[in-house]
Amino acid sequence: MAYEHKVIRRVEFSETDMAGIVHFSNFFRYMETAEHAFYRALGYSVILKDFDPELGFPRVHAECDYKLPLRFEDFVEIHLLVREKRSRVLSYFFRFSKVDEKGQNPKPLATGLVTVVCVAHHPDGRMEAVPIPEALAKKIEVAPAELLAT
Amino acid sequence: MAYEHKVIRRVEFSETDMAGIVHFSNFFRYMETAEHAFYRALGYSVILKDFDPELGFPRVHAECDYKLPLRFEDFVEIHLLVREKRSRVLSYFFRFSKVDEKGQNPKPLATGLVTVVCVAHHPDGRMEAVPIPEALAKKIEVAPAELLAT
Amino acid sequence: MAYEHKVIRRVEFSETDMAGIVHFSNFFRYMETAEHAFYRALGYSVILKDFDPELGFPRVHAECDYKLPLRFEDFVEIHLLVREKRSRVLSYFFRFSKVDEKGQNPKPLATGLVTVVCVAHHPDGRMEAVPIPEALAKKIEVAPAELLAT
Amino acid sequence: MAYEHKVIRRVEFSETDMAGIVHFSNFFRYMETAEHAFYRALGYSVILKDFDPELGFPRVHAECDYKLPLRFEDFVEIHLLVREKRSRVLSYFFRFSKVDEKGQNPKPLATGLVTVVCVAHHPDGRMEAVPIPEALAKKIEVAPAELLAT
Repeated sequence: MAYEHKVIRRVEFSETDMAGIVHFSNFFRYMETAEHAFYRALGYSVILKDFDPELGFPRVHAECDYKLPLRFEDFVEIHLLVREKRSRVLSYFFRFSKVDEKGQNPKPLATGLVTVVCVAHHPDGRMEAVPIPEALAKKIEVAPAELLAT
Repeated sequence: MAYEHKVIRRVEFSETDMAGIVHFSNFFRYMETAEHAFYRALGYSVILKDFDPELGFPRVHAECDYKLPLRFEDFVEIHLLVREKRSRVLSYFFRFSKVDEKGQNPKPLATGLVTVVCVAHHPDGRMEAVPIPEALAKKIEVAPAELLAT
Repeated sequence: MAYEHKVIRRVEFSETDMAGIVHFSNFFRYMETAEHAFYRALGYSVILKDFDPELGFPRVHAECDYKLPLRFEDFVEIHLLVREKRSRVLSYFFRFSKVDEKGQNPKPLATGLVTVVCVAHHPDGRMEAVPIPEALAKKIEVAPAELLAT
Repeated sequence: MAYEHKVIRRVEFSETDMAGIVHFSNFFRYMETAEHAFYRALGYSVILKDFDPELGFPRVHAECDYKLPLRFEDFVEIHLLVREKRSRVLSYFFRFSKVDEKGQNPKPLATGLVTVVCVAHHPDGRMEAVPIPEALAKKIEVAPAELLAT
């Protein structure tokens, strides 16, 4: 059972905007990257291609609160925490911290929230909400409340 | 005085992802595009370059609720509504609708929320919250409550 | 028969980078946008979904020469010209110009080149080069040589 | 003296498009990422902020030849090789290979070419071509011809 996952990445030039900081929309891409790494750490790709019809996790809600800007070549740690787990729904809380080259001395940058629904992708393009596969669901648990406090 | 603005755009191929739909992060870019068009409609660019130090509107909060997917070549209308106006802060509510080629027959896709703070960009890279310039602030008003109801 | 197409777009904030100009990779997205608009003008979507297996036009070559930078809120005209047409291959030449609000007074910014191959997307994910459908091919012709000179 | 640099990255979901493969424009972002890592390996950030006026390396030419598609969660190695070095100009050749989890068994995916010019960013926004700083130039050499053969 797992309730958290951390990834560190370095800000790329193409992620900045003319204000000299990471464009705010990229924090949502960072969240998704951490989420996919979490599934991989559990032994499951987000694509879950072995299922027929194919499963996926489209977002139904996403939000981010920005405290400090992030700049080119900064290291950012994205800390995913499982916030809620229901039959068809998972909700993740994220803490963004600026860290040094060694991943130390975290400085809080932002927090985020993403809610995804497990869906089956039917061949005609239709998406239908379905229960999260048991094999995946049983590996995921909600994080302790004190870790989720903002 | 203005409290709303609408823009319509057509989904581009590069905005889609392998799930065959617009990547969720692009809804945040769409919101920003509508916001900038709103400032232009008021006679002000978001850059507000005439001020010294230069002003900008970094985001402190952004969120989106997704109801239906958006696909390549769909037309999407982004309807911005001013939700809150304070000395240094503006908050916008957004309705996303899929529309036809003529901009008609809107189907609700998503709603969004963005809060921005007016900041001065100091030459050393520091950003300081400052009041929204009077000339801009006096042109913006909060939308009627019934338009903001979700 | 058509050999050219023009689109005009306005630079968005999220397309800029910390150097204050449009990130060079976005010129490739602009080229693709003009190409898709060209297909639509001919009555064909790039997806060509009516074919079974589905057809697409992946790129085998893309290049861009940058002369002048493009900035936030600039208007850019993308002028597509058909440069070469073979059974399975189309090659496009692009001229980027900065234009004013009325689409006038073009100033050359960049030129580009893209070569695409018509492929069938097989259900197993495999892509196979196939002839461009006759109905589309017969609508496309190579531009006069003098328009293609750089 | 250095003439090459390698980076490996994993394809992210947001880098794919509805054709199920990495959008072609992202190969240009990958090239830039490898280039910046190369400068860092030499002890110089691409920003070169210590110079006054600030220096940068805008692209004047970029191209890519695509052989095989790249998919979500694939590992891609980007191999930068210095192709040309002049007073104000650097040209890089890139080989993209799909590799396994251990960075082994490279399969050629694409090749690329980027030419950058060293410019001074003047406070008024103007960019002027200037010689590459001696301290950086003397660390860079052209790769052996046999490594550059395509």
